[in-house]
Amino acid sequence: MAGLIALLPDLVCVVCGTTYPVTSLTWRCRCGGVLDVTAFGPHLDVAALPDGPTSMWRYADVLPVPLDTRVSLGEGLTPLVVSSAHEDVWLKCDFLMPTASFKDRGAAVLATTAKRLGVNQAIVDSSGNAGTAAAAYFARAGIPVQVLVPAATSPGKLAQMYAHGANVVLVDGDRAATAAAALDAAERPGVLYASHVYHPYFVHGVKTYGYEIWEQLGRWLPDVVMVPVGNGTLVLGCALAFAELYAQGLIDRAPRIVAVQSSSCAPLAQAWAAGLDEVTAVPTRPTIAEGIAITAPPRGPQILAAIRGSGGTIVTVDDDQVLQAQTDLAAQGLFVEPTSAVCYAAVEHARTAGAPRDPDDEALEALRTGEVVVPLCGSGLKTGKAPQHVGT
Amino acid sequence: MAGLIALLPDLVCVVCGTTYPVTSLTWRCRCGGVLDVTAFGPHLDVAALPDGPTSMWRYADVLPVPLDTRVSLGEGLTPLVVSSAHEDVWLKCDFLMPTASFKDRGAAVLATTAKRLGVNQAIVDSSGNAGTAAAAYFARAGIPVQVLVPAATSPGKLAQMYAHGANVVLVDGDRAATAAAALDAAERPGVLYASHVYHPYFVHGVKTYGYEIWEQLGRWLPDVVMVPVGNGTLVLGCALAFAELYAQGLIDRAPRIVAVQSSSCAPLAQAWAAGLDEVTAVPTRPTIAEGIAITAPPRGPQILAAIRGSGGTIVTVDDDQVLQAQTDLAAQGLFVEPTSAVCYAAVEHARTAGAPRDPDDEALEALRTGEVVVPLCGSGLKTGKAPQHVGT
Repeated sequence: MAGLIALLPDLVCVVCGTTYPVTSLTWRCRCGGVLDVTAFGPHLDVAALPDGPTSMWRYADVLPVPLDTRVSLGEGLTPLVVSSAHEDVWLKCDFLMPTASFKDRGAAVLATTAKRLGVNQAIVDSSGNAGTAAAAYFARAGIPVQVLVPAATSPGKLAQMYAHGANVVLVDGDRAATAAAALDAAERPGVLYASHVYHPYFVHGVKTYGYEIWEQLGRWLPDVVMVPVGNGTLVLGCALAFAELYAQGLIDRAPRIVAVQSSSCAPLAQAWAAGLDEVTAVPTRPTIAEGIAITAPPRGPQILAAIRGSGGTIVTVDDDQVLQAQTDLAAQGLFVEPTSAVCYAAVEHARTAGAPRDPDDEALEALRTGEVVVPLCGSGLKTGKAPQHVGT
Repeated sequence: MAGLIALLPDLVCVVCGTTYPVTSLTWRCRCGGVLDVTAFGPHLDVAALPDGPTSMWRYADVLPVPLDTRVSLGEGLTPLVVSSAHEDVWLKCDFLMPTASFKDRGAAVLATTAKRLGVNQAIVDSSGNAGTAAAAYFARAGIPVQVLVPAATSPGKLAQMYAHGANVVLVDGDRAATAAAALDAAERPGVLYASHVYHPYFVHGVKTYGYEIWEQLGRWLPDVVMVPVGNGTLVLGCALAFAELYAQGLIDRAPRIVAVQSSSCAPLAQAWAAGLDEVTAVPTRPTIAEGIAITAPPRGPQILAAIRGSGGTIVTVDDDQVLQAQTDLAAQGLFVEPTSAVCYAAVEHARTAGAPRDPDDEALEALRTGEVVVPLCGSGLKTGKAPQHVGT
């Protein structure tokens, strides 16, 4: 029997504890803190899973939104494929989502929420993939959406947004400039700021990623779940899934979360290395891992706490390693964008014969010798270039 | 209990009945006829389906290939989504396959066969999607593959092939010139001509498309299954699936197959209109529906017979209708390439208030008023352009 969960639970400030109804369209606390969802005790009807829909909505029991306004393009239950190179490394193919990235999980939940609330204007900002997801799902919901992206966003991602009829605004400057422009626009009354960073319902959509891994592996979880980290949506989604599965008695230990950043833009990795609980903006360089080039993630402290709580770690990779990993994955039949290759780059590096080892670093040892799930989050067709031409 | 089927069944000429073992790598009969697979009496273990893998390999019972050399990227069980515009029209999202087209179904079966046979060189020709699928699956199998494509093939498709490490050969001229070049190369000893047109195992992979529709609709089939038709792989795959489901007592009637061609390249539609059993090459013009611009499909008589046997028909759409359909689909959240929009264009046209009607044409009436499944076969990211820029 499915749990009777409270739908559309309130939002609560992680800093001061103030709560807000979702209907208020609040996206940040008056104190400046980011918001989470109040506890609602999700309960999965495990016995019903084999007959559930072949999408992420098979986990509707644990989602905070109503089914009667569900906005869905059939997202989820993406393939989990063993790597050709490592029999204990699985590749979770979220690039096979309707808009070709994992962001669809959160966008489906936010569009469902917006439809229930009767919102008639949404706005998002994005380095690309969250914008394409919002464009598609709000189009499906029949709700106009404005998408702010950096002017240098990949042509494939822009083509998607235009195709879905979004009002695309190209913002000069970097990802931070785009975010700043969006925060201004989000203050307009009646507008839903459908941000994958700020709106905490988004993470509840993303958590289905963790439930799927659990179910597809035969209802267990591996030693390590890797995650590329920029704004941390997938880190937080995984941590939430694992916490819920544990609370329901469906796993007896949660995986370590090993997060990966580009060495060119690594504020979380630097905070981690310094043993900090907060993130300070750091100097960055351009990187081909455009999707995680975030200089000041608003949920930095939450991300660091989630990784620490899991017994995980944060590592970095450079662009050369990313390109090599993209090539290696394509040689296995899986063509992903550079951002999606960072985790594979990191696990390959950790398993290189000559790589430095530290037996006291349990997370790195688990990455090297344990069972590992690597996400492939975005399609190579989005950036539109082969990593290299290998024709003979 | 799964049926014990003969693996790697022989090939048989549809014209003269000569049989060939698969190991012979024969791709066309000495008499010039195309080959089919000899009957092998597939039997689906229906009771085991709920616990089957979440891929097309849940139908492994009915596939002619061994599981122990399975070459898989998790393909299949793609979403089946109701159209926003018509509650009795479902959109089967095969563009969410590993290489972003339905061709992966056949490529997985051919690569599995090649691996079992110990082949060490494969060759294919393609307008694009079959080439990207072959590039990915033979890469996964570790078998070198040469892919011949027209020089004008979409950049996204070429990027995929290069990424997967295929030996890509750009052939000047049209699709027919590419096919001619491939036939020469396919005669080299020891080479598997892994053609989606000629190798009949390919169609057995594609038939899983029909099994999935049946299962996802709750083990029944709609009045009409639409199919874009060029070389007819999906028409023949659907007809095969429906025949097998009927033979196993799993359906009590098969759907009508309504095939769609571009009005700029419509040899099958013209043969159909003239009541012919064979196809003659006809004058063609360029079309944005590049994936079905086939002037002389080698399996023409089989395609016509399959559609006729289903009580279906063949209709045409022009490029303006295709572009409009592509836009309409993207406005529902589904961004597909032009070739994939031809069926939606045709069903939209048939349901236009002012469209001419003929109550005696049962297939068109079924298209207008019945339950219809429309395939979305290839991603819009492959051609890389939005149908139009709709930003406000």
